[in-house]
Amino acid sequence: MELFDHPEHDGHEAVTFACDRASGLRAIIAVHDRTAGPACGGVRMWAYANEAEALTDVLRLSRGMTLKNVMAGLALGGGKAVILGDARTAKSPGLLRAFGRAVDGLGGRYIAAEDVGMSPADMAVMAEETPHVAGRGEAEGGSGDPSPLTALGVFEGIRAAARHATGSDDLADCRIAVQGLGHVGLGLCERLHDAGAALVVADLDRPRLAQAQVRFQAMVVAPHRIHTVGADIFAPCALGGVLNADSIPALDARIVAGSANNQLATAEDGARLADRGILYAPDYVINAGGIINVAAELGGRYDRAAVEVKVRAIADTLTEIFQAAGDGDTAAVADRIALQRLAALRRPMDAVPAG
Amino acid sequence: MELFDHPEHDGHEAVTFACDRASGLRAIIAVHDRTAGPACGGVRMWAYANEAEALTDVLRLSRGMTLKNVMAGLALGGGKAVILGDARTAKSPGLLRAFGRAVDGLGGRYIAAEDVGMSPADMAVMAEETPHVAGRGEAEGGSGDPSPLTALGVFEGIRAAARHATGSDDLADCRIAVQGLGHVGLGLCERLHDAGAALVVADLDRPRLAQAQVRFQAMVVAPHRIHTVGADIFAPCALGGVLNADSIPALDARIVAGSANNQLATAEDGARLADRGILYAPDYVINAGGIINVAAELGGRYDRAAVEVKVRAIADTLTEIFQAAGDGDTAAVADRIALQRLAALRRPMDAVPAG
Repeated sequence: MELFDHPEHDGHEAVTFACDRASGLRAIIAVHDRTAGPACGGVRMWAYANEAEALTDVLRLSRGMTLKNVMAGLALGGGKAVILGDARTAKSPGLLRAFGRAVDGLGGRYIAAEDVGMSPADMAVMAEETPHVAGRGEAEGGSGDPSPLTALGVFEGIRAAARHATGSDDLADCRIAVQGLGHVGLGLCERLHDAGAALVVADLDRPRLAQAQVRFQAMVVAPHRIHTVGADIFAPCALGGVLNADSIPALDARIVAGSANNQLATAEDGARLADRGILYAPDYVINAGGIINVAAELGGRYDRAAVEVKVRAIADTLTEIFQAAGDGDTAAVADRIALQRLAALRRPMDAVPAG
Repeated sequence: MELFDHPEHDGHEAVTFACDRASGLRAIIAVHDRTAGPACGGVRMWAYANEAEALTDVLRLSRGMTLKNVMAGLALGGGKAVILGDARTAKSPGLLRAFGRAVDGLGGRYIAAEDVGMSPADMAVMAEETPHVAGRGEAEGGSGDPSPLTALGVFEGIRAAARHATGSDDLADCRIAVQGLGHVGLGLCERLHDAGAALVVADLDRPRLAQAQVRFQAMVVAPHRIHTVGADIFAPCALGGVLNADSIPALDARIVAGSANNQLATAEDGARLADRGILYAPDYVINAGGIINVAAELGGRYDRAAVEVKVRAIADTLTEIFQAAGDGDTAAVADRIALQRLAALRRPMDAVPAG
């Protein structure tokens, strides 16, 4: 048993292991850093092979939320929660309520948002036990599905990347390979199609592929080939870890910019992309539309127009990163800028003489 | 890393690993069960060899507090906290305040009390960050040193044991061996001496031994011999684990009743005592005077007389246990009664039909 010396611990302020015998709940709630505000991040329900895997996942994701939230300029710190179990079989109202009580026990230090294995309806059940739930459905007084805003952010991010790489953000002559046609992927395709881009798509779901063919005249390729098709831009909008030592040499695109989380398999893969002269839009910067939306919901009166302005500003943040990186590793530069912003927020406290 | 499957986990509601980089704080706060009320237990600061040792300790002690508090009839659940580090060298106001913030982050689910490595002054520093601190000094609005009340409870428990074993609670003709002359041990000696008992004492501290000789005409023996001296009653008031496979066969007393925590080295040692015909007053029942005092402080207006009435009632609880145990293992019977009381408190909730 090691938590404080866990390689992913990184000074986590609090990591809580919550259990409820009656419902079978086993959850880990990680609060990484609250410098910018209460820790906000998704609740993921997943059938982890074991506790160790769940712990590593929640610690890594929680730290990632600290960087993501500060980079998006939000008054939110970084946190994440995982519920151990198969969401298809082990989820129950009792379990969700028990998790809600565990969140409530942290008194607002962690705000739960939707993630893998959780639906807006699930969040509403949690919210019966605690006010510290965000990202609820419109029917429950929330801001509804955040996917369109994530898609908007990725679209603006792609334009910023094109502008930086080619001097023009006109996508009319661009060929863009989109991996994954979930809510965000489809929404992105629609925007790209409207902007005149030619689309190549891959997914495992045939009806979605058919929809992309009909609506966007997209060309369909096999999922294992999508990153290798000749394209101006590769947009990973599905799995994590798609940018790795195997896939990067096979990439045939000048830009990588998509909505998937944790696109880089390892920290070295950012440098691998730079070495190949591929411009990479760091995932947690370009896909922040969803959390920006959640933050707006938390802020009181929800103003969709104001949210869109903030989501479009993702393009400015990316441009800043691209310029700072030059020909270098944009992912490393993004981390550096995020940590600098965090340090700047901490400074007033640090300036107090040590007692 | 295993928490949920840890052998001592026992369905702990929440186990929080708190960290503060600035002060070096590493702490584990365990909330075992809140059926009876908010989890209350001591904060122990100790130079554990490693995290695993700290975790095992806090889980075991936290569950113990659930049994102790319910057995004392308190509206408190079971919890405990450990701060990893040497209290003599690693303790600082910053660390205590960071711990206070960690306690505050649990919103009152855990109430911190004094334990090994913590002083009333330390508790007052914590209390700058959270209201969820008990057992503070009188100068800080607390109830002061709880040792006299622990000693009172042990004294009344010894009388109850004598009454059960011999039919008389007159200690005038009793020879009592007291191991440990700390605040509780000395206070107990004073009461026993006033009741006419002949005392045999052991401690490592020479001035305290001298004090016991002068004030109580106590006979002094070496610490390793105290449990073997012929006595009616052996009162362990120092270390844990003193009742074990080695010491129990060497005991020369009819009754074991003292204030030390965790007197039994293993669960089997309760049966070992019963097999030898020795009446054992379960430690967490007889030494509950301190937590009864803390609970009274939390309850609002502190009424010393009312606290004393409640502490004296420890004798009734012990008598109930002795009677239920017959010639059997009193420690096992105490656990069973505590768990029954807990189940009875849970019943109204359990009676709600599953949804």
